Amino acid sequence: MTNVYDYAQNNRDRFLQQLIELVRIPSVGTDPARRADTLRAAEWIADDMRRIGLNNVAILPTEGNPAVYADWLEAGDQAPTVLIYAHYDVQPAELSDGWDSDPFEPTERNGVLYGRGIADDKSNVIITLKAAESLLASEEGCPVNLKFLFEGEEEGGSPNLPGFIRDYKDRLQADMAIIADGGLEKPDEPMIIYAMRGIVAFEVRITGPITDLHSGVHGGSVHNPAQVIAEMVAKLHNEDGSIAVPGFYDDVENLDDAERAEVQKSDMSQQEWDQNVGAPKDWGEPGYSLAERTGSRPTLEINGIYGGYIGDGFKTVIPSKAMAKISCRLVANQKPDKIYEMVTSYIRQIAPPTVHVEFQKHGDGAPIRVPLDSPIVQALSRAFKLHWTQEAAYKRTGGSIPIVAVLQDELNLPCVPLGFSLADSGIHGPNENYHVDMFHKGVDTTIRFLQEIAAASS
Amino acid sequence: MTNVYDYAQNNRDRFLQQLIELVRIPSVGTDPARRADTLRAAEWIADDMRRIGLNNVAILPTEGNPAVYADWLEAGDQAPTVLIYAHYDVQPAELSDGWDSDPFEPTERNGVLYGRGIADDKSNVIITLKAAESLLASEEGCPVNLKFLFEGEEEGGSPNLPGFIRDYKDRLQADMAIIADGGLEKPDEPMIIYAMRGIVAFEVRITGPITDLHSGVHGGSVHNPAQVIAEMVAKLHNEDGSIAVPGFYDDVENLDDAERAEVQKSDMSQQEWDQNVGAPKDWGEPGYSLAERTGSRPTLEINGIYGGYIGDGFKTVIPSKAMAKISCRLVANQKPDKIYEMVTSYIRQIAPPTVHVEFQKHGDGAPIRVPLDSPIVQALSRAFKLHWTQEAAYKRTGGSIPIVAVLQDELNLPCVPLGFSLADSGIHGPNENYHVDMFHKGVDTTIRFLQEIAAASS
Repeated sequence: MTNVYDYAQNNRDRFLQQLIELVRIPSVGTDPARRADTLRAAEWIADDMRRIGLNNVAILPTEGNPAVYADWLEAGDQAPTVLIYAHYDVQPAELSDGWDSDPFEPTERNGVLYGRGIADDKSNVIITLKAAESLLASEEGCPVNLKFLFEGEEEGGSPNLPGFIRDYKDRLQADMAIIADGGLEKPDEPMIIYAMRGIVAFEVRITGPITDLHSGVHGGSVHNPAQVIAEMVAKLHNEDGSIAVPGFYDDVENLDDAERAEVQKSDMSQQEWDQNVGAPKDWGEPGYSLAERTGSRPTLEINGIYGGYIGDGFKTVIPSKAMAKISCRLVANQKPDKIYEMVTSYIRQIAPPTVHVEFQKHGDGAPIRVPLDSPIVQALSRAFKLHWTQEAAYKRTGGSIPIVAVLQDELNLPCVPLGFSLADSGIHGPNENYHVDMFHKGVDTTIRFLQEIAAASS
Repeated sequence: MTNVYDYAQNNRDRFLQQLIELVRIPSVGTDPARRADTLRAAEWIADDMRRIGLNNVAILPTEGNPAVYADWLEAGDQAPTVLIYAHYDVQPAELSDGWDSDPFEPTERNGVLYGRGIADDKSNVIITLKAAESLLASEEGCPVNLKFLFEGEEEGGSPNLPGFIRDYKDRLQADMAIIADGGLEKPDEPMIIYAMRGIVAFEVRITGPITDLHSGVHGGSVHNPAQVIAEMVAKLHNEDGSIAVPGFYDDVENLDDAERAEVQKSDMSQQEWDQNVGAPKDWGEPGYSLAERTGSRPTLEINGIYGGYIGDGFKTVIPSKAMAKISCRLVANQKPDKIYEMVTSYIRQIAPPTVHVEFQKHGDGAPIRVPLDSPIVQALSRAFKLHWTQEAAYKRTGGSIPIVAVLQDELNLPCVPLGFSLADSGIHGPNENYHVDMFHKGVDTTIRFLQEIAAASS
């Protein structure tokens, strides 16, 4: 038997190959046509769990895509139990969205691998499994008890996860949780995320005329739904970029000066913004920095808008229906239910009498914050000293991981997110990518993190 | 040989069968995937033209879909020459758009035939050909010289037609033109359209970030293009329903009181509007009746709007791009070029500095008016006495037939539209349909129309 880091080093090519294999399975969890592929990804993971020596491997059904569970509880009663969460579902992707190579055939260019889900979140699935494999196969052994929970509906807003966690409360009981979903801004700046925005996502659908109409024959007498949805969406923000929904900011806890200064430290430079975003000009709520607007302030985004004919050429139609997909990112102490109620009431109020309005909720999750002095945060801070040249910074993030709020609420677990994708990973967009050297650094850091957790508890 | 009306009566089942055959060919002229079908429709028509005894049958190429030409010039130098225009291309249609039966497999229910293009405009293609066939095969013979011009790009805004007409100016020379594209409001109310709205159609595309972004990571720092397109579209109309583009109404010729009263006669009742449109409430420019708003006032319609993720489920994306397809219906004396310049300049002006804007023009056509005392209008008025119980009403229509303005400009031809679909034909929408008895009435009326044209000229 070898030292755990030697084991990881000796098997690095195979580990990477396994990541590539998993990315090849197009587990687009929200797409009914990809249901079989999504299940295949779950089975691939369960097989690997069995192979590396985890116990009680199970593909547990939900009303949607199943969760994959496994554990290893042989570290002893004195050792802490760590629940590791990740998700195996990915965002939709088509070559025609602007990919330079098949999104489901990972391709390496200059030390970077391209493929849908390679950053979000399959790298983290593989990194945590391979860290566990290395510890279990090494001479040191694994110093903590492990429970894995990999879900298949994160990209769809985890609609069934809260109920699932309530149903399996006993099995999932642990001392802390690692949320293996997220990443770093830069390859040389380790970062610990201590706060995450929450989310509430929904769809508003409007119906005007009973059927699509000819715009020449009827144009002038009908409030065109493609126009109405635009007029409604345009009323959701004020001219200055703030959200126009009355009361939207009421529950937002403002940062004190010290925390504001800490957040400022990790502010994106204009150059970084230009490189990652590249729009002609930045935009947002006045009076807040880029870091604050994306981390500690709530937002309301239009994730999709549609009405009428959008194919090639032209069609002189007045559509019967139109819709918008909307999500709000929330910060402490906003409550998803209250915001949903507030925003949908406002939308009903601004809807003109010329259309019918209906809503469909797609998912939600509360915003969270983890104490900076908790053992899990401190263990991660120490783990980041291996391979990394500078101290980890503490950061708030704009993304939402609904599971975190649920784990805090239902199991009362301190959680910390862990991940090694970079700001330019292009998650959710075309050419999603992952740096190969970050993958290997991630495995080592995760091994050390688990060791430090054990050390902190002994 | 038989009397012309007996011939039409004896062959009515075959005539109808030919209409069904032509509708089965999915000649969606704007869809590159339907290019072969579109050409097949042109060939089908050319074959029938040869069969019924027309001469000089030719499928004449354009930069897009070809036009089909044929003539019969044996009525003598003294007889008038009538140019008959129709189009063989149809709007896109998918069963999933809300059709109750396959749009390209015509299905009869209660004396009504359902199929894409059966009203707009294949019924008129067949009616004019079958009227010509009946006259040519009858004992009376055909009293006028005939030229047929069937185009394949009307639903795409006839981009190549003006150039085509200039190129074939000599061949197309005639004394008048029948624009076989249009319809009636009700089965028992014949109607002569003496004015048509013009059109200018284009697409506005905006680009913000260089790639699609994760709305959690970047939300708050980017002016989301799906939101921007909505905000821009919302500025195109005023709250009261009038168009907000400065100067848009400047060239509109207001109706005098007498013509306004004439137009009012054909105003749609609220009950008819409810039945045909059925939105919760009507809408439009204040101070004008339904008939005026759809016939004698210009409009600006959003025919399509799109940005971001619009599939099943949810995707937390900030899209890089968004777009809207827009068309303006114009009335005398608005000029399409001037309106295009005016509207696109305004859109550039209201575009925020956070996006790039580009335009693509899809087509245009000037508004037209035909003198009520012209021989062609008077001949049609007399033709409508056959089979119809009341006098034809004179009406302005909201639809646009770009060819009409071109024929007036290039060939200086008086034109009159002719067609026998009804207001509830659902053209451009799902379940487009055609009343079988209107088809047979249409053949007879067209025969009589051509005879009355000859009588008026002798």
